[in-house]
Formats: sequence, C-alpha cells, structure tokens
Amino acid sequence: GGGMWAAGAARRAGLALAALGLALALAAWRRRRRARPLREVLVFPSPPSCTEALLAEAAEPGAAARPCHCPLPHGDCPLSRLLRHLLTARRSLDICLFAFSSPQLGRAVRLLHRRGVRVRIVTDAQYMGLQGSQIGLLRQAGIQVRHDQESGYMHHKFAVVDGKMLITGSLNWTTQAIQNNRENVLVTEDVEYVQPFLDEFERVWEKYNPINYKFF
Amino acid sequence: GGGMWAAGAARRAGLALAALGLALALAAWRRRRRARPLREVLVFPSPPSCTEALLAEAAEPGAAARPCHCPLPHGDCPLSRLLRHLLTARRSLDICLFAFSSPQLGRAVRLLHRRGVRVRIVTDAQYMGLQGSQIGLLRQAGIQVRHDQESGYMHHKFAVVDGKMLITGSLNWTTQAIQNNRENVLVTEDVEYVQPFLDEFERVWEKYNPINYKFF
Repeated sequence: GGGMWAAGAARRAGLALAALGLALALAAWRRRRRARPLREVLVFPSPPSCTEALLAEAAEPGAAARPCHCPLPHGDCPLSRLLRHLLTARRSLDICLFAFSSPQLGRAVRLLHRRGVRVRIVTDAQYMGLQGSQIGLLRQAGIQVRHDQESGYMHHKFAVVDGKMLITGSLNWTTQAIQNNRENVLVTEDVEYVQPFLDEFERVWEKYNPINYKFF
Repeated sequence: GGGMWAAGAARRAGLALAALGLALALAAWRRRRRARPLREVLVFPSPPSCTEALLAEAAEPGAAARPCHCPLPHGDCPLSRLLRHLLTARRSLDICLFAFSSPQLGRAVRLLHRRGVRVRIVTDAQYMGLQGSQIGLLRQAGIQVRHDQESGYMHHKFAVVDGKMLITGSLNWTTQAIQNNRENVLVTEDVEYVQPFLDEFERVWEKYNPINYKFF
C-alpha cells in the first residue's frame, strides 16, 4: 500500500521533473536558434563587377530577368552584397555618410525612395558640394538630406535598414573607396550594436534640423 | 513483484530523464552566459578630458595612484573607454589604421610594447609622413610598422587585442577625430566579426612585407 503509493508518487514527480527539464532545454535551444541574427563582414576593394541585373530586378521585381552582356564579371562581390542588403529595405533607410558619390549606391537609394521606403540622409557639408557627389541627385529625387554646420567632420559611415540591420565601417560610398581602397563593412542585426547607431542617427538628425541652421 | 519492479523501473527512467533534461537546460544556460561577450559602441566626439592617471596606472600597475590636478575633467569618456580596452592587451595588439597621430593613443601603444605585448601596425603610406603622425615615434620605440604601396588608401581603422577583441569604426586615431568629429567605434568579442578582421590583418601584413616593396 504505502510502498506502492510512495513509488507512484516518486514516479509521477520524476516524470514531471523530466518534462520540466526537457521543456527548459527545448526553450533554451529555440531561443538560441531565434537569436541567430545576420552577421557579416565585407572586405574591400571590390573587383569591378556589373550590378545592372541586381538593380534592374530591384526596380521591377518579378519582371523577366534580363541578363546583362557587358564585359564585366557578373558574380557576387562585396559591392553586390552591400547592395543586396540595402535593397531589403521595406519601411525605412537611415543613412549617415561623410561622402556619397557612388552612382550604383545612389541609384539603389533612389529606387528605394520610389518604392515608398522612408529615406533620410545625413552628410558632411564640406564634402557634399564636391563634384561627383550623389547628394544633389538624391535631393532632386525628393529625398530628405540634412548636413552638419560644425567645424569637425560628420565622419560616420553607416546606414540602418528598417531600424534593425546596421551597415557600418570604414567605407565611404564612393567608387574610389569601393574599387581602390582597403576598407571594411560590418553588417549586423545584433540589437546591442544597432540601437546606439539608431540613437546617434536621431540625435544628429535633430541637431541638423534646418530650423537650427545659422546663416552668416 | 512484477508491478513493483515495473514501477521502480519507471521511476528510475523518470529520474534519469529528469536528470538529463535538467543537465541539458543547465548546459544551454551556461552556454548562453559564456556566450555573452563584450559588446560596446562608443560615439565621438569625446569631450576633452585627462587620461594621465589612466596611462600612469597602466605604466606602473600597483603603484600608488597619483591623482592628476590639471583643470580638465577626469571622468569616463569615449577616449578613456577606448584606452582602457587597448590597455587590456596581454599578448598581442594588431593595429590597422589610415591615420595615427593621437599622442595619448601613441603613448598607450608604446607602453604595451614595453610591457612585452607583440605590437604590429599597418598604416597608409600617404598619411604616415605628415606632421604630427605617431608612426615615427612608434618605430623609434622598436615597434614593427608596415605600410601600403598602392594607389588606393589603406583606409581601415581597426585594432585587435589578444586576437579576440575587435575595435573598429570610422575613427582614425587623431586628436582632431577624437575631439571634433562625429565618429563611431564598435568594440566586440563576437568571433564572427573578429575572425574576418584577423584574416584581413594577416593578409595585409604579408602583402606589405618589406621584401615585397618596390623602389622606383
């Protein structure tokens, strides 16, 4: 009687503990799987390569692919990886760049703006007027651009896609940097890195609000 | 007899399962704890502040702290955070920098070299000869420095401490950048980010081996 009851209780307690333990282990494993965000490092220079198909496909999603027959290589490269990440934007794209003169990256950003993505750009006043800068074209397309009014440089080189993917590094978005310099770009969805950059973007965006500009 | 035996077996099986489940849960929890590496973002400009005590303490660990009485603030700031991270180096410090002219950071690197840390520096040939560059002083101290011989810039701005902590961003190690520019520095021990930078360092270090230099 008592022995049987005690054995039954022990068995039930054992099974309950087993169920609890397995549930905890499963939850921890699931959390680990879910917590694996995008982490990538791109190293430049990027060999000259054709990004025409990538941009055409992004401009007309679902259109029949038109292979490009130019003599450049058409494979994956650091620049095409960077473009692909930018083109995933669905809601917002916040860009904070010292120098922006790459025609391909400029085209990608205008394309996202046309697609309804809210694009905001912060850039450096000293660089933005130089020949080859994309800033004029981006403004003509109706994209909001703000710039510093400080003696120091606005030297950041980062972008945040949809408030959750950070693209940051040494790379200015210029053809010179992409094709000739040794550069790095880190792509991350880790919120510990993304959040401080989002905060910095909002801080600088507000600081450079045209209502605060001084004219001398 | 048979019933008791079956109950006992079920109890033993239940307890074994419970132990297994709890062990798995504990291992997953420990892995999560252990897998929480350093993750920090520093945002510049850094307000002018005194790093004398920090550097003096690093030069003579264990010596009586000599508080500095200069008029600058002595609290924590992005520059002191950066210095602290560098000064944790025990075995190696690999530096890959476009521009290096900050006296405080130069002093920290020489201090680590004297302490027996293997310091290697890669820098850009165009910048290194400019007035204020720390490269000459670092070479005089016996630190190995290599530079590019390319038309593009060696534009990286990163360092790896003990092969496991990556410090990277938009910041050149110059007083102008530290005190006046808007800049970012990301500090990470995530191996997915650290490894590609280590690989790039070794690639560039070998590429810029003086035996490969050409003289025109």
